[in-house]
This record gives sequence, structure tokens and C-alpha cells, in this order.
Amino acid sequence: MANKKMRLCILGFGAVGQGVAKVIQSKHEELIERYTLDLVVTAIADRSGAAINPDGLDLDVALNVKDETGKLAQYPEYGVADIDGLEVLDRCEYDTLVEVTPTNIEDGEPTQSNILKAMNDKKDVVTSNKGPLALNFKTLINAARENNVRFRFEAAVGGTMPVINLARESLAGNKIHSVQGILNGTTNYILSRMANEGTEYEPTLKEAQELGIAETNPYQDVEGLDAACKIVIIANSLMGWDVTLDDVDLHGISNISSNAVQLALKDGYLIKLVAEANDGKLTVAPMLVKEGSPFAVNGTLNVITLKTDLSDDVTVVGVGAGSIETASAILSDIISIAKHTN
Amino acid sequence: MANKKMRLCILGFGAVGQGVAKVIQSKHEELIERYTLDLVVTAIADRSGAAINPDGLDLDVALNVKDETGKLAQYPEYGVADIDGLEVLDRCEYDTLVEVTPTNIEDGEPTQSNILKAMNDKKDVVTSNKGPLALNFKTLINAARENNVRFRFEAAVGGTMPVINLARESLAGNKIHSVQGILNGTTNYILSRMANEGTEYEPTLKEAQELGIAETNPYQDVEGLDAACKIVIIANSLMGWDVTLDDVDLHGISNISSNAVQLALKDGYLIKLVAEANDGKLTVAPMLVKEGSPFAVNGTLNVITLKTDLSDDVTVVGVGAGSIETASAILSDIISIAKHTN
Repeated sequence: MANKKMRLCILGFGAVGQGVAKVIQSKHEELIERYTLDLVVTAIADRSGAAINPDGLDLDVALNVKDETGKLAQYPEYGVADIDGLEVLDRCEYDTLVEVTPTNIEDGEPTQSNILKAMNDKKDVVTSNKGPLALNFKTLINAARENNVRFRFEAAVGGTMPVINLARESLAGNKIHSVQGILNGTTNYILSRMANEGTEYEPTLKEAQELGIAETNPYQDVEGLDAACKIVIIANSLMGWDVTLDDVDLHGISNISSNAVQLALKDGYLIKLVAEANDGKLTVAPMLVKEGSPFAVNGTLNVITLKTDLSDDVTVVGVGAGSIETASAILSDIISIAKHTN
Repeated sequence: MANKKMRLCILGFGAVGQGVAKVIQSKHEELIERYTLDLVVTAIADRSGAAINPDGLDLDVALNVKDETGKLAQYPEYGVADIDGLEVLDRCEYDTLVEVTPTNIEDGEPTQSNILKAMNDKKDVVTSNKGPLALNFKTLINAARENNVRFRFEAAVGGTMPVINLARESLAGNKIHSVQGILNGTTNYILSRMANEGTEYEPTLKEAQELGIAETNPYQDVEGLDAACKIVIIANSLMGWDVTLDDVDLHGISNISSNAVQLALKDGYLIKLVAEANDGKLTVAPMLVKEGSPFAVNGTLNVITLKTDLSDDVTVVGVGAGSIETASAILSDIISIAKHTN
């Protein structure tokens, strides 16, 4: 069988974008063997500009240039300075956009414009970016439908914990009644440490920051915004709701005391930041979770339970973040597009 | 878009076969709406014979006849007595075989012959039957390949807990290094009760039998054969191994004492019947599982962890058995075949 060539344009070259490049590079031969899929990256963009070569970039070179200079524009011969995502999309030749710029939950830009432009140009799109999906889901889905292109976003929801594709493929035919999940690794790490070691919130957060688990500005994680974006995307895509971030009843974990955690423990419960889509309502809030239940997962793990009509409860546990893990979810989306466009 | 008609021949009309009929019936309109998939059952067979109608059977009638007489041969007008599976396949018009006859782990028959005949007749096949898959995986896979037909068996492994399709779709691009799971609901129920209530094995088994959770002849469950079949199928299909039931190092739970369970508990461990495919070896044996780990699931739940190269550990928890739940896995396989044969 002849190999199927798919040309990728990668917008964003931070941890996730670099993870995608590394995974594509290390899996190139294996993907040809297993799926007759020949992935070629024809453009990568970062804040400095882009590297664009219609014949395919050398991913080793791209990763090295980024590592050494911080700027893709320095890519020998094919580097272009001061060019934005939309211009890159105009100038490069590609079949599928991989949009992995940083999440912006204010207005979803520039991701949203990048995605819409690609769709209007009849390109398939894979993204890990929660912003536009949590703000304007309908707009994106409708654009994909009108342009008859494929749009995949597994990586936006649970890193490598499969949710969207699980529901679409493994639970095809099921109706999903409600969803409950621990969708943020940082808060789960902090709450797990507080339970296991009896520490207070502030020093535990600081420690998580020192370990690189919590970000310097942890606001979106600890106040529940990250989990809220994810539950919005899940409700829209798996349950057919029409909701945005504003619809989430939101409570973070910064007021949780060590005392509360220990009192719960005494009764056999853990406090977890749980996101829920149930009965038309979206909630992200600290909730009591029984020890020994699938939700009593430790550390940075994520977990989600889908309540279905035929399959009862199906629960998935996985690593919620990480460069390679997120890239793996993006890769599964790329393969899914390739398989279904034979 | 025009509906895509798929004609099904269902061999076997016990709990699973009836579950399939009920699910197809209740989901008929929804499947047309969501997937433009029009499922028509043209034949159903049980031990008494079959009901065959090329224009489609009335599933209400089939379920009623079975319920009232126990014999599909009594189906008005279209009932046929004393006909075996192979003859049914010859006489009925169908696109996809749904093979749900009882599992036979001695020689895999009559399932194996039914499946091979359907494949040689260029029909797609979905099955929940572990027997031939655990005994002669290669034969079946090769027959599917040579005849260029699709072969799906999600329901054979974890009931409604998605494993095969999860790995194939959501974890596409990953290599699976090893697999560990609690793959039998009956033994998990018995061991959970022994841990929670301090009871001995024999009375707990008896109670499970009274509740209909354990079978009258519990041998295949409690001695680990059921779990062994499943881990063989998983190793063959997800990891490319070439193994059969004989390759499993097998230990059941009938020698586990209440004392052992309680001692483990004291140290924060549970005893579970764990099936493992790791480092070229297949094992089913009682093992210690840490309380609070994803494997500490209670009752009849199943759980499986896939260790992957890109996505770290991915764990799924779900209901391992049940008529409608197993039918749901079969339905997802049917939909998968329909989607990929556009």
C-alpha cells in the first residue's frame, strides 16, 4: 500500500509543540509501518516567527534551534522573523493544522482566528487549546461542519487521559447522562499532599511551585478555571450542551484548610476539586470523595466518570498533563484524521 | 444523507443475544439520527433453531417468543426448527455476523466455525465469545485479513469496560508495554466481600451464587480461566503476542482464606485476582493491591491499566458483565464497522 503523506503546520512551539515534534520524530517509521502514515511538518511557528519549508522541516534542527536561541526564526535558510500565525497559514503548504499556542481564556485569541482560518481554507485541525473551545464551542464546530473538515481536541480536555475519543468510539451508541471528573492535576497534587502529610494550603502550593507542578501564577488552576474550561468542552462535545465558561458555578481550593482535610479523612473521605456536568448544571467545587472509590486518586492524576445509558459508569484514570503525554493525545487525533480520510 | 442499511445475523440468543436485540430495538431511531445507520436483524438463532426473514425480523416478537416458549423456532411464519449456525449463515442474507453463542474454552466450537464461515463468505464479524479468540487468535485474525473483512471483539474482553477500542483509537500511536487488570467481576465481588465483611471464601461464594453474581458452576471464574482468556486476547490483539490459554500461569482464588485477606488489610492492602501480561509472560493470580490505588475497586467492577510509551499509565474502570452492558460493547463495534465502511 502506498504511504499516505500528511503535511502538518504546527502553531506554537512551547512544551506541547516541542512534545509533538519529538513524538513525530521518534515515531516516524513506526507510523509508516502501522498506519502507512507519513507525517511531514512543513511549518512551525513561535513568538519569534516561523520555520517554513514545503518539502518538510528537519525536526532535530527545529528543536535544537529553539533550545539554543529560543527563536524558530533562527532556523537556517527557512527561518522567517516577525510573522504571525495567520500569515504562516497563508504561506505554508499543509493538510492539518496543529494549534498548540498557549491557552487564552479571555478571548481565545489568537487560537480561535488561527483555527477558523484553517477551517475556511478547508484544512483539518487538531488542538490542545482550551480557550476558544470553552468560549465559543459552537462557532468552531459549525465552521468545521460548514467547511467539511475534521476537528479534534482530545488533548484540550484531559491530557493523555482519553475522554472525547473514548466516548465517540468505545461508547458509540451510548447516551452520556452526566460527567464527573478530577480534571486538574495541580489541585489534585496539592490536595493529595495536604491529606497525606497534614500540611496547610499555602506551603503546599509553594512546594508544588518549586517542583514545577504548579505554575508561578497558579490562579487558573487553583481557582478552578482550568477544570471549568474542560468540563465546558466535555458538556458541549459529549452531551450536546450549548454552554460557555460563564455558565460554570466555580469554587477553587485556596480556602481549604488542613483542618477540613483532616476532618474529612477521619470519616473516610478525601477533599478533591471535582468538575461536574449534571442535570443541565456545570459545577467546579471542592467535594468529598470516598476513600477507595475510583475518585480517590493521588498526585497529579486525572480521573473522569461518564454515566451512560447502556454501559453504566465508565471511569478513566490517566496523567492529565505533561509535554509528551499531551503530544500523545494530539498524535492519536492526527491518526484518527488520517484513518478516516482514506 | 441516505441511511446506510446493515443487515445483522445474530447467532446465540441467551442473555447477551437478547441484550443485543433489546439495545438495537431501543436505539434504532437514535442510530439513524446520529450515524445514518439503519440496523436490520435478518436472522437470530438459538439451540432450537432460528428465525430468518430477509426483510428483517420483528425484535419484539423474537424477544416475546423466546421469553414465552424458550425457542426461536416458534417465531411465527419465519421460525425454522433444527438448523445449526452454519446452515443459518447459508440461508440468511446479512452483512455482519454477531456471534454471541456461549463461550467454549475446550475447542472454541461452534463459534470458531461460525466466525470462519462468515469471514470466508466476506462478512464482517462482531463477537463477545472468548473461546476461539483465546485458543486460536491467529487463525481468526488471518482469516479476517485474507478475506478483507472487519473483525471486532471488544465485548469479549471487559464487557463494557473499553479496552481494545481504547487502545486502537484513543491511544493510537502508543506502544503498549504491559497490561495489568482485574478482569473478572465474580472473583472481585467475592474478594471484596471477604475484605469488607471478614467472611470465609466458601460462604461468600455461596452468597454470590444466590445473588446470581456467581454461576452455579463457578469453576471458570474462581479458578481464573475467564480472566486468563481475556488477558490472552489482550496480549494478542494489543501487544502483538502470539499466545494461547496454555501459556498462562494460572492460580485461582479458592484457597484464599479470610485470615490472609485480613492480614493484608492490616497493612493497607487488598487481595485481588490480577491478570498480567508483562515481559513475555502471562499470569493470573491473587496479588496484593494497595488501598487507594486505582486497582482497589470494589464489587463486580473490572479495571485495567495499560502501560504505554507515550501516555504513561492509562486506567479504565467499568462494569465487566451484564446483558445490556455487553450488548453496548457489541453495539460500539457494530457502529465502528459501519463508520469505516462508508
